[in-house]
Amino acid sequence: MEYLECIFCQKKFPLDIFDPFCPQCREPLLYPSPQEKKSFNMEKSWPLEKFLDFLPLLQVDPRLSLGEGNTPLIRLDRVIEEFKLSQVFVKNEAHNPTSSFKDRGTAVAVQKAVSLGIRRIGTVSTGNMASSMAAYGAKAGLETLVLLKEDTPEEKLLLTGVHNPKLIRVRGDYGELFYKSFFIGRKHSIYFMNSIDPFRIEGYKLTAFEIFLQLDRRIPRFLFVPVSAGGHLTGLIKAFLELRRIQFAPDVPTIVGVQAQGCSPLAQAFASDKVKVERIKRAETIAHAISNPDPPAGNIVLRLIRENKGVIISVSDQEILEAQRILAELEGIFCQPASATVLAGLLKLSKEMKMDKNNPVVLVITGSGLKAMESLKSFKTDTIDSSLSDLEATIDSLLA
Amino acid sequence: MEYLECIFCQKKFPLDIFDPFCPQCREPLLYPSPQEKKSFNMEKSWPLEKFLDFLPLLQVDPRLSLGEGNTPLIRLDRVIEEFKLSQVFVKNEAHNPTSSFKDRGTAVAVQKAVSLGIRRIGTVSTGNMASSMAAYGAKAGLETLVLLKEDTPEEKLLLTGVHNPKLIRVRGDYGELFYKSFFIGRKHSIYFMNSIDPFRIEGYKLTAFEIFLQLDRRIPRFLFVPVSAGGHLTGLIKAFLELRRIQFAPDVPTIVGVQAQGCSPLAQAFASDKVKVERIKRAETIAHAISNPDPPAGNIVLRLIRENKGVIISVSDQEILEAQRILAELEGIFCQPASATVLAGLLKLSKEMKMDKNNPVVLVITGSGLKAMESLKSFKTDTIDSSLSDLEATIDSLLA
Repeated sequence: MEYLECIFCQKKFPLDIFDPFCPQCREPLLYPSPQEKKSFNMEKSWPLEKFLDFLPLLQVDPRLSLGEGNTPLIRLDRVIEEFKLSQVFVKNEAHNPTSSFKDRGTAVAVQKAVSLGIRRIGTVSTGNMASSMAAYGAKAGLETLVLLKEDTPEEKLLLTGVHNPKLIRVRGDYGELFYKSFFIGRKHSIYFMNSIDPFRIEGYKLTAFEIFLQLDRRIPRFLFVPVSAGGHLTGLIKAFLELRRIQFAPDVPTIVGVQAQGCSPLAQAFASDKVKVERIKRAETIAHAISNPDPPAGNIVLRLIRENKGVIISVSDQEILEAQRILAELEGIFCQPASATVLAGLLKLSKEMKMDKNNPVVLVITGSGLKAMESLKSFKTDTIDSSLSDLEATIDSLLA
Repeated sequence: MEYLECIFCQKKFPLDIFDPFCPQCREPLLYPSPQEKKSFNMEKSWPLEKFLDFLPLLQVDPRLSLGEGNTPLIRLDRVIEEFKLSQVFVKNEAHNPTSSFKDRGTAVAVQKAVSLGIRRIGTVSTGNMASSMAAYGAKAGLETLVLLKEDTPEEKLLLTGVHNPKLIRVRGDYGELFYKSFFIGRKHSIYFMNSIDPFRIEGYKLTAFEIFLQLDRRIPRFLFVPVSAGGHLTGLIKAFLELRRIQFAPDVPTIVGVQAQGCSPLAQAFASDKVKVERIKRAETIAHAISNPDPPAGNIVLRLIRENKGVIISVSDQEILEAQRILAELEGIFCQPASATVLAGLLKLSKEMKMDKNNPVVLVITGSGLKAMESLKSFKTDTIDSSLSDLEATIDSLLA
């Protein structure tokens, strides 16, 4: 028998794949961390095999994989120089099958679904998660339902639709839809692996394990990550807690969760010392991928961040777009606005942070800029026009 | 002193980074293959370090890397089942920093540029290569010139412009522009790393080495790759020849170069037993990334393909779009039309091919579908609309 646990009630409950919430307090349940000594399977290259000891899976089926993980850790040499920082890296999760970190979670949740004999999966999403689910559902040959907001832009619809899932555009409250999906899921045996799904969260742990290995078995001093529903941050912090528990690392990083000011329910709750997150009435930010006014794992995030001396901050759209530009122009990395929040956050906090070569900072880039082309509208592209015969003269004057 | 060689004149010439063409016959020069025994540095994970013995570089600088390579090899289980094939894999080069295989070549050519003390780089491109060059140029802090066709769509311009290179839109003949760029390059010390650049081609070799390792040190029986300018195919075949020379593998794969029927100068020359490729007057295909009417490495490709018993075929736009759909719907892989040519080609030839578990087929996917969103216009996305209150009934009838 498998169990999930509530970190608030501190109780375990038998796994119910169709209802991953605490029967007592209705907070999302998490998969219990391994208690005994675990190790990495270093001879394996596929992350799901390499870190299998830390996953809630007895075995993994390569036929369900699209090649998730093994993403690069890139040192931001030019940003370091420009802003007089010391040791800053990007963990670029855009190098995933559908160009976002969501694939890490979907990969693990789909493995779980197939191991349980489930043939129908679903999600509630407007963007990155929808296309990730549609792709993995296609690969696994599962019937896949994607519930979208009514006003989902055509481009995002196409990106998900290309994998031919069942697409339903729903008029009505998005937060309500999130919870209703589980009710419908039970009725039709559809495993809704939404943002707070405990197996999805287990998948996000692998990003932290890879960072640990890429830093030569050391943890970062600071880890910046965008926060939306809260599942990603929960997975990352859970991984570092597990590394400490098995004595792979003496401590956990200071986690800095970053939100967009236009939708920052967690940063607001953190700043005002609240234990519970309050729903935001109106969300408005260029960082669409983290624009969640009612984060379902919000209370978990607040608790984990406080217990582990992290912080949650917010940055303005202007700071986000400037950070996106800096990453593209100085580092050759074109990321989503939601991902650029991490550099914006670092630049905001850097003066107060103790950084040196022995205290590396890692920024988690969550998704490719290719999936948010609309953000480029504000970019200024200087283009020079020339005829072929004038080209030499054009370049002469350009380089003069 | 470094040399480049002409495979037609069978002579070596001192390296001139600003003019990589044979002084006698004006065909593109290649970097000579290593003659002595070489090995892989298996303890390294970064491909440029792992395969350094096979690269024309004495050392590599991690500060110039965006995390290229280490792309997944994915077995197409559902395509195999659907079309009664045996052992077919995709090598998915879309998992690269700018989502195309071009990064492999750019990474090596930029290392060379910096090692030579060059501070200006350039390219002539309309698509994948332009954004790859702009990204790597930004990371390296090099002055980067990108020469584009007059009619380059706004979206492609933005994708390159985001990294802030010098962008020049040129009116006039594109083939002429290609050759003129080298003339301008010499004058202004701009290293134009165009499609046939010998160091770029060396970078493409790494894809073949990774495939060899991912197949447990075996070569594929067949390797399908899209062909445009010819540099990519040249690099891949060169790598397999080097593996055979050092006795890592007993043979080379049968290479199948695939073009789009609407622009297939190489397939036409191959079919009519010509030694030289003839320029196509009018190119028209959905596979924009391989729409090159006058491939600069065309004669090299014809020679290498014939010497090594490969073939060059073409597929129709309809076959391409169908293959793109199959990859998305059955395998969860959303690729560019140019990349889908490889599956279209396999489905066309599969009846004549001897395939079994011991004769694996590898299809090289060259770029992400995210960079060719216009191709989705022909896809049909069935979307169901529902209110939140009707959602249960909607799903009841959908799953009935």
